[in-house]
Amino acid sequence: MFFASDNWAGASDQVMHALSTHNQGYAPAYGGDDLTQKITKKFSEIFETDCAVWMVATGTGANALSLSTATGPGGAVFCHEDAHIRVDECGAPEFLTSGARMWGLAGRHGKITPDSLRSGLEQIPHGVVHHGMANAVSLSQATEVGTAYSLDEIGALSEIAKSRNLAMHIDGARFANALLALGCSPAEMTWKSGIDMLSFGATKNGALCAEAVLFFNPSYGQDFEYRRKRAGHLFSKMRFAGAQFEGYLKDDHWLKNAAHANAMAERIASGMKDKSSARLAWPTQSNEVFLHMDRAQSDALLAKGAMFHEWPSALLDERDRPQEGESLIRLVCSFRTAQEEVDLFLSHIA
Amino acid sequence: MFFASDNWAGASDQVMHALSTHNQGYAPAYGGDDLTQKITKKFSEIFETDCAVWMVATGTGANALSLSTATGPGGAVFCHEDAHIRVDECGAPEFLTSGARMWGLAGRHGKITPDSLRSGLEQIPHGVVHHGMANAVSLSQATEVGTAYSLDEIGALSEIAKSRNLAMHIDGARFANALLALGCSPAEMTWKSGIDMLSFGATKNGALCAEAVLFFNPSYGQDFEYRRKRAGHLFSKMRFAGAQFEGYLKDDHWLKNAAHANAMAERIASGMKDKSSARLAWPTQSNEVFLHMDRAQSDALLAKGAMFHEWPSALLDERDRPQEGESLIRLVCSFRTAQEEVDLFLSHIA
Amino acid sequence: MFFASDNWAGASDQVMHALSTHNQGYAPAYGGDDLTQKITKKFSEIFETDCAVWMVATGTGANALSLSTATGPGGAVFCHEDAHIRVDECGAPEFLTSGARMWGLAGRHGKITPDSLRSGLEQIPHGVVHHGMANAVSLSQATEVGTAYSLDEIGALSEIAKSRNLAMHIDGARFANALLALGCSPAEMTWKSGIDMLSFGATKNGALCAEAVLFFNPSYGQDFEYRRKRAGHLFSKMRFAGAQFEGYLKDDHWLKNAAHANAMAERIASGMKDKSSARLAWPTQSNEVFLHMDRAQSDALLAKGAMFHEWPSALLDERDRPQEGESLIRLVCSFRTAQEEVDLFLSHIA
Amino acid sequence: MFFASDNWAGASDQVMHALSTHNQGYAPAYGGDDLTQKITKKFSEIFETDCAVWMVATGTGANALSLSTATGPGGAVFCHEDAHIRVDECGAPEFLTSGARMWGLAGRHGKITPDSLRSGLEQIPHGVVHHGMANAVSLSQATEVGTAYSLDEIGALSEIAKSRNLAMHIDGARFANALLALGCSPAEMTWKSGIDMLSFGATKNGALCAEAVLFFNPSYGQDFEYRRKRAGHLFSKMRFAGAQFEGYLKDDHWLKNAAHANAMAERIASGMKDKSSARLAWPTQSNEVFLHMDRAQSDALLAKGAMFHEWPSALLDERDRPQEGESLIRLVCSFRTAQEEVDLFLSHIA
Repeated sequence: MFFASDNWAGASDQVMHALSTHNQGYAPAYGGDDLTQKITKKFSEIFETDCAVWMVATGTGANALSLSTATGPGGAVFCHEDAHIRVDECGAPEFLTSGARMWGLAGRHGKITPDSLRSGLEQIPHGVVHHGMANAVSLSQATEVGTAYSLDEIGALSEIAKSRNLAMHIDGARFANALLALGCSPAEMTWKSGIDMLSFGATKNGALCAEAVLFFNPSYGQDFEYRRKRAGHLFSKMRFAGAQFEGYLKDDHWLKNAAHANAMAERIASGMKDKSSARLAWPTQSNEVFLHMDRAQSDALLAKGAMFHEWPSALLDERDRPQEGESLIRLVCSFRTAQEEVDLFLSHIA
Repeated sequence: MFFASDNWAGASDQVMHALSTHNQGYAPAYGGDDLTQKITKKFSEIFETDCAVWMVATGTGANALSLSTATGPGGAVFCHEDAHIRVDECGAPEFLTSGARMWGLAGRHGKITPDSLRSGLEQIPHGVVHHGMANAVSLSQATEVGTAYSLDEIGALSEIAKSRNLAMHIDGARFANALLALGCSPAEMTWKSGIDMLSFGATKNGALCAEAVLFFNPSYGQDFEYRRKRAGHLFSKMRFAGAQFEGYLKDDHWLKNAAHANAMAERIASGMKDKSSARLAWPTQSNEVFLHMDRAQSDALLAKGAMFHEWPSALLDERDRPQEGESLIRLVCSFRTAQEEVDLFLSHIA
Repeated sequence: MFFASDNWAGASDQVMHALSTHNQGYAPAYGGDDLTQKITKKFSEIFETDCAVWMVATGTGANALSLSTATGPGGAVFCHEDAHIRVDECGAPEFLTSGARMWGLAGRHGKITPDSLRSGLEQIPHGVVHHGMANAVSLSQATEVGTAYSLDEIGALSEIAKSRNLAMHIDGARFANALLALGCSPAEMTWKSGIDMLSFGATKNGALCAEAVLFFNPSYGQDFEYRRKRAGHLFSKMRFAGAQFEGYLKDDHWLKNAAHANAMAERIASGMKDKSSARLAWPTQSNEVFLHMDRAQSDALLAKGAMFHEWPSALLDERDRPQEGESLIRLVCSFRTAQEEVDLFLSHIA
Repeated sequence: MFFASDNWAGASDQVMHALSTHNQGYAPAYGGDDLTQKITKKFSEIFETDCAVWMVATGTGANALSLSTATGPGGAVFCHEDAHIRVDECGAPEFLTSGARMWGLAGRHGKITPDSLRSGLEQIPHGVVHHGMANAVSLSQATEVGTAYSLDEIGALSEIAKSRNLAMHIDGARFANALLALGCSPAEMTWKSGIDMLSFGATKNGALCAEAVLFFNPSYGQDFEYRRKRAGHLFSKMRFAGAQFEGYLKDDHWLKNAAHANAMAERIASGMKDKSSARLAWPTQSNEVFLHMDRAQSDALLAKGAMFHEWPSALLDERDRPQEGESLIRLVCSFRTAQEEVDLFLSHIA
């Protein structure tokens, strides 16, 4: 019953197989290999547009470095108060952008709203040097609490952002899970909705250590190659990053993995319907389930070997917080989650 | 005949095998896994002392982040003029240290000397704010041109450095190759010679993407965990970095790989003895051979399919530069270099 | 009727006189002059303790550079949501600290509370690398909205901060005004209340461009000289910074200036008592008065030549915001404010 | 006999007078005052072109912040080995550019040459990510050793720089002195010779603390206002920076001051002709004289009360270094240097 994190799962067989396949013979280093070109082409097919593709070592690197191409002196990036870039990356975005501010906006269920964005923009009006510059909006898709912005929601935020020339960024650590939740195309969820740049995550969904930054808007990222190297994110044996992506993207492997993870999460969510000691904190839209649960119940589950984390409620809207005596727990499913694990977990809940 | 770079070789079978072995079941993310602890212990055994060990994504990350723990405002790191940190890392050390200067010192055969270090220190005397601070000395071991500092040479530089409280750092992208060249223990080549911190490279010698920073002196690196994360160098599925190191360090695999690479380089060097159209530029001490060669000869070799790079001579001592009509070429051997490749190459040289 | 900002007033005669006095003959540059030493001694007398004193060009420089001595990788500085360092310095603290985060805390009347600080600390628990480090607390004294922390309030916050080894910093752009509001000694308002470092402002209260950073706790600021130079804040003709401080501190000039400014503000506040169209937004404790006022009234005052700014209410506690049809205006008095200006202003209010 | 530095002189009477004149009444803060606009206009007249003008606190700030507008990730700025930005600013350029490298080039008499620039550019070829980017060339005019680039020399360097799209910057701490040495117009010495940006120094030549950055090429510096604020270089009472420049630029005061300083230096240089124990190290072209002198002689001069510094010879071309038993001394004249001082000094030399 491992629901602690999708990072606890290892790599998928298909990704591992691709690693072995591409570990033959010699290949130019630092991205000069054929595979790197091939991956770029593959992404352009998937996203139905030419895009610049840069592989990096981690999701934190992908987020911080992509945002660095959009931020200026005194810059600000609007994001949800509990966004990974704001609270979980040890200041990497601030550091790698040379000081841009991650400007937290409130909103239920992990989503910022047009109102909260407009309110944030009012605090950084154009041309007032003291307040700095508003430069970008970053959306976590799926969000930190397992929900997903709809296409309409993304579009509405993009429209506001564009009115002030802000870049639109997606932190897609769980991009595939959100994509399936929406049932739309990768193009629709990104550039067709006004997204300029994307941190495309593969690690949580089956890779070992493969993340990529995609630029749909050529106004950004012209110097990204230098930014990546300057941060120590250019692998020398780049072929192994390419190999992971080849295995990950081939034959819809990435979508199949995410579909499984989402289905397992849905199975948990559905299984909650008749439970008296636990209830969904908000809708489950990807591979994460959040439950309000009697603390005695959650303690009992841990004692029975279930692995999961309690979720901090300080940044939640008051209406979403657990009640007295309850804990808020997060259950994360992955491509490796077995149906048996889920059913065993459900059987333990009163 | 692939002698372009040891980065062109893939990963060794033993490292690949370790990856598969450790891709079983669930494991805590971000270094909370058992393997990470095990690797630290293994390094302490190899180096015969307790040391702090931090795995990072790249050698550039290892160098820049380790040096960042030793540099202050206006800081300077002394290194050879052609050191990787000064000319080949796109300013990563400057960026990740928030502006420290990589202060190039001259010296034949890729090595700085006590005199050049003393001369550098005179330019940054203690306590003159305009000139900034002298903070560290970084040695490439093996050097960029395939030579290795002797224990006496390291010791002499350390003594000067310590007299000004400078940290001693080794860029060990080819640590194993240098170690075998000296025939000493890892402890002797590092902390017993005054080295405080080490970028321990595994990628060039058989890993996919595994580098580590080791601190022998506990005065440095107390906040390294935060520096690594802040630069986006903390892998989420850290077990795979650990797995690479397990395969790499087990049963002296790393030393065997390096021994083979060094032997192949030595075979090339020996094969040069009777050649009229090429000669060793300087002694071969690791897995790299540098040859002065008639340009017609080097062109012919390329035409026959040999892969190698010409080496820029601008930063060389005048006495080490190629003569008119000659090129200076670098041949790099790796654990994968076949004796047949070497012999074929030699057979093509007049 | 100039109430726009205390920065609109020029310099006081006494400060100007000191400039002329010290513009005689030659003096060593870069702080090697006698005056620099004299100023340090004077500050130590005023604060009744040995302290390190560094003069810098601006208040923003003073804040950002002092905080940089206390922040580590992924660091966070707790401050009020509307603190100058968070919203009015164009990201200088983030930039000059290489990425520390200014972590806004809520609180009425511009003050953070023990509860809000504790709540902030819970979000950055010790030892969780993802969340970074909690490094410092910065208090604006007087606050951005003209109130002043009491000694008890400072002490209570310091106690919480010290329990987590956080540095306590005061942004004292209006230090003198707050000091008089409390009626205590400089020592009591700083190190005796747990303050480690202070941005001591002189510019708003009579100087041309003179700010100083004071370290009461020798654990901080050992490398400040280098930080100041590295940011371009070391004046070459430092004597002129010293001269400003000499004129400013001599014969309690700074306290007299602040006493006048505070008295003028109090005169406005008192004059509001019987007004139907305006009321104090919160108590006036320094040289700033905040009024809720019918918008028609505030428009009329502007039309009559009064100079003042409307204050943004987005960051205010809901209970402190203006009502429908009202504006919230800020009136700032300075050493130059004439009683006639105040009385004329009052006469215009219905 | 004060020849230690032009920074040892105070401010000129005309500048002091302007300060007093503009210390009347209220004026908008942060550059919103009329005087700031007036200064911009005045500079555009002097330089015969529209230019953007930004006043900052120090020359180090001017240099580092202007260069920051031209440098990208992994960027490099070519300058002479002994340039102020490389050796005397405590890493401020590296810090405020977020890590650009100050790339030292050799050259006699403090000047880089077309050959040395071309050689530097070869080390950072276009498009090789490992080596970073070549972004700018910075010339000290006058140089650190008191010489001045001719218009032809500047033009030749600009031509090379432009062929690689590098920005041309002048560190004009002693701009006026060099201008008079060349006898050309400000326009000719800057934008007509390909200069894109200028650190225009006033402090050494009569101001208290007034420096300005001028952009002649509108491709650079669009976000300079934000860079200045982010580094804490925006004075709140900006009128006082403006006042200094008004006094400094009015009625050719700046040129008169420099003419006097240059004349005093020339008087020293001429006075050396028949001296046996001292000789000019190289031609005197501004307000600085460098002498090779018997050490006994220089010791005797110090004993007699002459104030000057010995100049470090480590960075000099071998042909320019003092001989055994000699010291190399620097004598700096300023607008305040009295002819009597000069003559007394000369009378002491054998």
